[in-house]
Amino acid sequence: MTLAAIYGVGTSRFARQRGLLAEQLAWPAVLEAAGEAGTALADIDAVFVGSVFGEPGVAQRVLRGLGISRVPVYTIENACASGATAFHEACHAVAAGRYRLVLALGVETMTTKFDRAIEPMAADAEGAIGFGMPAIYGMAANLYQHRHGLTDRQLALVAVKNFANALDNDRTDAGARYSVEEILSSRLIADPLTRRQCCSLTDAAAAAIVGPARGAGRDVRVRSSALLSGALWDQRSTSAWGFDLVRDTAEQALGQAGLGIEDIGVFEVHDAFTIGEIVTTEALGLCAEGEGGELVESGATARDGKYPVNPSGGLLARGHPLGATGLAQIAEICWQLRGEAGGRQVPGARLGLTETMGGGAAGLDGNACVVTVLEG
Amino acid sequence: MTLAAIYGVGTSRFARQRGLLAEQLAWPAVLEAAGEAGTALADIDAVFVGSVFGEPGVAQRVLRGLGISRVPVYTIENACASGATAFHEACHAVAAGRYRLVLALGVETMTTKFDRAIEPMAADAEGAIGFGMPAIYGMAANLYQHRHGLTDRQLALVAVKNFANALDNDRTDAGARYSVEEILSSRLIADPLTRRQCCSLTDAAAAAIVGPARGAGRDVRVRSSALLSGALWDQRSTSAWGFDLVRDTAEQALGQAGLGIEDIGVFEVHDAFTIGEIVTTEALGLCAEGEGGELVESGATARDGKYPVNPSGGLLARGHPLGATGLAQIAEICWQLRGEAGGRQVPGARLGLTETMGGGAAGLDGNACVVTVLEG
Repeated sequence: MTLAAIYGVGTSRFARQRGLLAEQLAWPAVLEAAGEAGTALADIDAVFVGSVFGEPGVAQRVLRGLGISRVPVYTIENACASGATAFHEACHAVAAGRYRLVLALGVETMTTKFDRAIEPMAADAEGAIGFGMPAIYGMAANLYQHRHGLTDRQLALVAVKNFANALDNDRTDAGARYSVEEILSSRLIADPLTRRQCCSLTDAAAAAIVGPARGAGRDVRVRSSALLSGALWDQRSTSAWGFDLVRDTAEQALGQAGLGIEDIGVFEVHDAFTIGEIVTTEALGLCAEGEGGELVESGATARDGKYPVNPSGGLLARGHPLGATGLAQIAEICWQLRGEAGGRQVPGARLGLTETMGGGAAGLDGNACVVTVLEG
Repeated sequence: MTLAAIYGVGTSRFARQRGLLAEQLAWPAVLEAAGEAGTALADIDAVFVGSVFGEPGVAQRVLRGLGISRVPVYTIENACASGATAFHEACHAVAAGRYRLVLALGVETMTTKFDRAIEPMAADAEGAIGFGMPAIYGMAANLYQHRHGLTDRQLALVAVKNFANALDNDRTDAGARYSVEEILSSRLIADPLTRRQCCSLTDAAAAAIVGPARGAGRDVRVRSSALLSGALWDQRSTSAWGFDLVRDTAEQALGQAGLGIEDIGVFEVHDAFTIGEIVTTEALGLCAEGEGGELVESGATARDGKYPVNPSGGLLARGHPLGATGLAQIAEICWQLRGEAGGRQVPGARLGLTETMGGGAAGLDGNACVVTVLEG
């Protein structure tokens, strides 16, 4: 089964770019994707945009400057999975034959809106008492450590790996060769998560141009894309926060693609916090539940390991421009599958997988998970 | 051609309901729709939500309280056409065979966020200088009056008609028998538009449950739904603001349905301001361009006229809860086509049309228009 093909991808830089307009981030991403695709923007016949904090109408404003008008434009909010959801919808719209050439775009101007962290909204009772995303992940990490004996050192190894991977990613300056001790001695944010285990506010955009499979050599095929929303956790679950939803979504995506997890050669997953990557690798089935710490320690998720996870640097190093994140993951997997990832290339990967979580400002009310399987 | 069938619709009350949570508005709308449809909420397998100012994650929060979880949830922002866009996507997802039973929901808590009018956002340079929606419509009305000789009295007649229609709408208390003089002597908002010619901030929700056509007698068939976004106006257009986009979208919707405008027996259109209904009736082809004033004056758009427009009271009387408006229009047309509209029933209508505009906070950057053709 093939839903659609990706003709081209592109991104802006990933950095604190305070004061830049959404246009200034989105335009280079779209133009790069169109350049890769070899398509004229005038031929795009629908646009799906992922954005969480963009003001109403921002998508049309961005597109107008590119001369894209009088086509359907859908702006989708699905928390941190907004860009992934836009891509998901773009692919399904192509599969349904609704459109021929679709732009999926994610864009977020985070540092213009927030200074250091996402502030809770008025109606967010959990956020108001400090129970924002770092606290949620911190508590999940605590519980997980208690249950499975995960060590602080194993948690830190996720960040060590991803920041090192980002050294070879020329779209961010955040790459660094940190020691475990440097990760653990950075400022404590939400016990046991230290600063370097939490993704940064980042301004960026990412784009993909999608259409029907056409046999062009450079195209990346979208084998499947699954999306689930809902209660990510309840007090009766014996699993860590997010585990159930990621597992169910991944099973659906792999099932639709007719593949097993062992077929996948490269992964971009939602490591907004180190514990997120640990839990996600387990939920994807890269190891048994409770063994994610050993998995990263074994080197299996390193770029030269059996299951390379976040060769781009992931959300931890690249940052997390909410609406753009899912499409940045898609872009990275495309470059990996085409053998164009330069110094961070995973050799020989033919199939790749992205996983994006939307934890949402409403905390435990849960949100979304999108899993996509791509073939080079 | 039939995209999908509407199994049931529902709405909350339409009023200033400050302090009510999105849940308190959405739940009665969804439960009414499910009751009409005779479906269990547990059988819903995807949800499309329209909301402009809802905080991230609000849709999942609302749905969680209804026990709807672990299905795809898409929250779509498309300015004032957000609810219409959610419905459009729900129908196309059903038509593509992606889902069997889809909830389309629009919800907006306006008066909790804004006091008297929508305030411009930080990045909205036009809004910052006072060029918000009332000013845009006011300038459009000025230009239109200059070009076509539309009188203040003709403009006011739109409001007279719609407020009178709302007297028979038990979902709002805003209905009133105003004279032309009372409309014209209400406070001036944006010359020539007076207060009673501008829709009110309103808190409400509206819902529809959609699935494949199944031959059930009470179902309403969705013959077509078209959506365009883009530049609503440029300085070279000889038409009033919005005319071109409404005309093009309506042509697409009617063309897909294989119908002409003369086939349609009842209309719910976007009368956020009186001039909007005038321009829309022309763009739909109910009269020639420039003759919308005569059309309303002739009584043709009254409930017992040839082309009944806004029998519900429209946005002018019912109010304009942005994300809910498009679905409120759909609900009204369903009740009309089923002969269940009570005192405001248009006799014998077999086909109905909704038109929703999204002007957007970005003003002249334009936004969206959705036109849907329904058959009872």
